[in-house]
Amino acid sequence: MSRFYKLSHKFNCFYLTGLKKQECKPFIVEGFQVGLIRPDVMKQLLKYPEVFLIHSGCVELNPAFRDYQERSSKVAPVLEDLREKNVFVTLRGWRDECYDVRTEFNSDGLLEMERSATCLFGIRQYGVSINGFVRHPQKGLCIWFQKRALTKQTWPGKWDNMVSGGLAVNTGILETAHKEAAEEASLTPQLLASLKSAGSVSFFFEGERGLFPNTEFVFDIELPADFIPENADGEVETFELMEVKACCDRIVSEEFKTTSCPVTLDFLIRYGQINPENEPDYLKIIELLHVPLQSIYTLCRSDSEIKTNGITSKQ
Amino acid sequence: MSRFYKLSHKFNCFYLTGLKKQECKPFIVEGFQVGLIRPDVMKQLLKYPEVFLIHSGCVELNPAFRDYQERSSKVAPVLEDLREKNVFVTLRGWRDECYDVRTEFNSDGLLEMERSATCLFGIRQYGVSINGFVRHPQKGLCIWFQKRALTKQTWPGKWDNMVSGGLAVNTGILETAHKEAAEEASLTPQLLASLKSAGSVSFFFEGERGLFPNTEFVFDIELPADFIPENADGEVETFELMEVKACCDRIVSEEFKTTSCPVTLDFLIRYGQINPENEPDYLKIIELLHVPLQSIYTLCRSDSEIKTNGITSKQ
Repeated sequence: MSRFYKLSHKFNCFYLTGLKKQECKPFIVEGFQVGLIRPDVMKQLLKYPEVFLIHSGCVELNPAFRDYQERSSKVAPVLEDLREKNVFVTLRGWRDECYDVRTEFNSDGLLEMERSATCLFGIRQYGVSINGFVRHPQKGLCIWFQKRALTKQTWPGKWDNMVSGGLAVNTGILETAHKEAAEEASLTPQLLASLKSAGSVSFFFEGERGLFPNTEFVFDIELPADFIPENADGEVETFELMEVKACCDRIVSEEFKTTSCPVTLDFLIRYGQINPENEPDYLKIIELLHVPLQSIYTLCRSDSEIKTNGITSKQ
Repeated sequence: MSRFYKLSHKFNCFYLTGLKKQECKPFIVEGFQVGLIRPDVMKQLLKYPEVFLIHSGCVELNPAFRDYQERSSKVAPVLEDLREKNVFVTLRGWRDECYDVRTEFNSDGLLEMERSATCLFGIRQYGVSINGFVRHPQKGLCIWFQKRALTKQTWPGKWDNMVSGGLAVNTGILETAHKEAAEEASLTPQLLASLKSAGSVSFFFEGERGLFPNTEFVFDIELPADFIPENADGEVETFELMEVKACCDRIVSEEFKTTSCPVTLDFLIRYGQINPENEPDYLKIIELLHVPLQSIYTLCRSDSEIKTNGITSKQ
């Protein structure tokens, strides 16, 4: 097993092993599966029977809640309560940032939820990531990495891609990329004119905080050799420009944020640095950069007993 | 449903609908599932009980055959016989070209099989494809397409990527890319110095001839604006350089080889031409360019009754 294939297992630990254990229960909102719930979370949700119905092997948000507003307002106090009881690590990193829960990326939101709580429900998360690179006259292809500030609530002090950020409610994808690039690395509008959309990666990670079925919209930006990113929002400790060989060593190290590796691996593959001649597990790695998250939740749903229990399916 | 998402359904028709019907039976060699067999093919294979054992919902190559050589030599006369009986369209396009049947890309071959017969057994196929492109001073990004010769056994007269070819036994991936580029488009070694590996696409198509679980190793080559590809092996009718907008129209038309669309779509995504701002089904299309073929065959195997019927699994 090559080191990059091993790495692909690390950021897909839930996809490759957790999912198969079938310990997690589908989370249903309005007849759609929008998440997966671990046994430790389920145990807590049992205490809020007016909000979460637990039946037929599923956790269902009370279908009596009529709309986005009502669903959001019923879930919020449960999360506040769980935060106060201090039962979940992730809620210690409360963001005060709302995340839209949807059946799929382009569908209407079903409810909004505090961002730090989404991993308790295994809600799909979407973000943007930017690969900043330089074609250096002497060193060849080089990539900019950022070191996350030690004060960050998640992955403090770990190395990361040059720029990244979650998609918040009502903010577009390209808009988020521009906003994060300006805040995190002081990329000017002139430089950002050469920002290019380059695909997406999807993977399913499980960490101490919860479940992360993540999809990142990937952008690349080629930067002049003399440009040095500067942080403007206090969330970055430092930046470093690295040659490909050093990048490869860094992403497989413990110093790199596990859930950011897929973006770098995808970049290295698209730019021919990881290729069929030097990577024996090439095809398997590419598959693990694009795991079928949308089918997983559909499959879980049809596997469960929902259909025979009268929950309306809009499929 | 956008036109590119619709197109992704077309080249994944088997993945999205055929697979779910569960009409096809796993094809087992040495305890590994290496293919899927349609009912029409199974009916014919029943006539060769000394070669194909049909039991437990599977078709198994007789496990008494001891090695690569014996397995290959027992299958070959069956295929010759089927060809003579003229029962399968695909065998009318006999290639006289051997294809290695393996459990996964980098494992040892289990047997070799005439290439035109692999789709009868749903054997995974691997090929290389090259996107030839030009950054034209006036027209912007342009892509070279080839029109397949009318004499080709498959997809005659259809438009296709600039260069592509199947991987034959004992030929490397980059080696195949170079060989096909020279034969199909007269790319010189000087030009080929800038050929770049850029990833892979996987999809599962079903056509009149059979089942095609295909994986293409993808390469890109940027060409000078004044270069014009010239065919050297008689397999190409003509070449055409097209602007992106025209490319998009062509790949969704009936004039384009269905199973070559994934490579072009992947290129257009990697180069930001299809992006989250202009493509509502962006993430779903990217998923359908990377369907998990390797997991499909494993899943089919564990779903069937093989395990309880004593066929040795080497997993």
